[in-house]
Amino acid sequence: MESKTAGGDRTELEFGRPEDVSVGIVGGAGEMGALFRRFFEEAGYTVRISDRDTPLDNRELVKSSSIVLFAVPLHLTVDVIRELVPLVREDQLLLDLTSLKAAPVEAMLQSRASVVGLHPMFGGGVKSFAGQTLAACPVRIEDKAWRELRALFESSGMRVKECTPEQHDRMMSIIQVLFHMTTMMMGRVLRELDVDIFETLEYTSPSYRLEMDILGRIFAQNPSLYAAISQLNPHTPDIVEELKKALGLYEKWFREEDLDSFARDFEESARHLGDFCKEAYEESSIILDLVVKLAERNRRP
Amino acid sequence: MESKTAGGDRTELEFGRPEDVSVGIVGGAGEMGALFRRFFEEAGYTVRISDRDTPLDNRELVKSSSIVLFAVPLHLTVDVIRELVPLVREDQLLLDLTSLKAAPVEAMLQSRASVVGLHPMFGGGVKSFAGQTLAACPVRIEDKAWRELRALFESSGMRVKECTPEQHDRMMSIIQVLFHMTTMMMGRVLRELDVDIFETLEYTSPSYRLEMDILGRIFAQNPSLYAAISQLNPHTPDIVEELKKALGLYEKWFREEDLDSFARDFEESARHLGDFCKEAYEESSIILDLVVKLAERNRRP
Repeated sequence: MESKTAGGDRTELEFGRPEDVSVGIVGGAGEMGALFRRFFEEAGYTVRISDRDTPLDNRELVKSSSIVLFAVPLHLTVDVIRELVPLVREDQLLLDLTSLKAAPVEAMLQSRASVVGLHPMFGGGVKSFAGQTLAACPVRIEDKAWRELRALFESSGMRVKECTPEQHDRMMSIIQVLFHMTTMMMGRVLRELDVDIFETLEYTSPSYRLEMDILGRIFAQNPSLYAAISQLNPHTPDIVEELKKALGLYEKWFREEDLDSFARDFEESARHLGDFCKEAYEESSIILDLVVKLAERNRRP
Repeated sequence: MESKTAGGDRTELEFGRPEDVSVGIVGGAGEMGALFRRFFEEAGYTVRISDRDTPLDNRELVKSSSIVLFAVPLHLTVDVIRELVPLVREDQLLLDLTSLKAAPVEAMLQSRASVVGLHPMFGGGVKSFAGQTLAACPVRIEDKAWRELRALFESSGMRVKECTPEQHDRMMSIIQVLFHMTTMMMGRVLRELDVDIFETLEYTSPSYRLEMDILGRIFAQNPSLYAAISQLNPHTPDIVEELKKALGLYEKWFREEDLDSFARDFEESARHLGDFCKEAYEESSIILDLVVKLAERNRRP
């Protein structure tokens, strides 16, 4: 991480006087852009946006804003930043909202502006920021400015989790790639085996219904986003490799009718997860009570 | 499925007069056996059990009970049934409670007794049967007796889902093998990559926390049970094959930086899931509101 105090000749942003700070959101008509537009407006900032059909284009917006926030789809982010960076001045602050951090932050650092990479760990449709997490990489920004910006986010109830872009992307290879990719695999298998979801739900265990709810939720969302977060993470090959290794072992143990090896492997994983299993069991039991109620309410005739 | 009305010389079980019907539970000291012991006792039946340290042994129990319920671990069930079947008379009813149905039912049919295979789609620790599902394969039983037995289960709030043993095991290759095996794979990857779970939770999105709760819940449970339901299902190789195919494609698309194919594949799966996605999105949104609250309450210092 670059020193936060570097660049002493950088103009200090006055977060304490929002009326003097103009925020420009590139991609401000999208769901996440609109959410952060409301956030900054409610905090008293003047916000303008550019998007496909806006009076302002990206270039004018970037030139005329103190804070520039990139809120464009992940697979386009780096290209959009690269195109606009030559227009950026040293006294500006660049932020982005994408699900990976190393490549977008690297692109923003090609300017001489202050740079903070952000990743909201929530969707653009949330009703409240309370209890939601914002991952933040304050890679080049005055300490005072970062403290103020962080306080601004926290004032809405968000939790700010600081990390380097590299730490972030490694974490996301677990949180996003491992979990989303296996979910997408499951969706694919259901399709390839032509499984009737509603028929399977007649055998509902609450746990299965809960897992299907999570699966269905993913597939109710944007294909490009899920393609990008799974396929643009630099650590994806490690995850695929490990998944292949696991499948290879399961296949071998099945062929050899070796239940003991399977159970031992299960135990080793449980040991790695440690205390978490008990906490998860308790928390999921409360959740499953709700699932049973929802299943009753939403039962098909 | 064998005709339910076959065997006219079979003594009819009088479910209407529970005091005349003795229930014997093989493995009655286990969690699921104990749950069904309470169930039958509360319905007025006399229940006796055999288990490792009980005064009655399995053979005496089987000889002296009108209804015999096998409640032993899945990987032992077929062996236990085979050993006891030579003692079984035509006027008895055999039930079992295991997570697969074809093999145990086949073993019970080697007797001349009435046979109903059961699979409770819930754990032995549930507080109530209300809203829980019981899969049932009434393969050889008088219609009247089956109607009465079914009504008995339903009187507790259970939903009874009838199916053949083959339909059941195919369904379970999705509900259990696909979903549990991918969860076990994820646990394995977390272990192999030495991921600190509590560190990942600092980046919590509610969805990730929910998925981790489900994962941790599985690993808080019995390794032998999960080994058996994953590795004894005859359809497991189909599931493993499909999962391997998916991983192979993801790997290829990553290497070729082919986000479009990935997104198109995602869309096809979403199309197969159809209306379910919207329902799942709505149901999971309610669940995630609860997860945010639980996360706040259970936050580590």
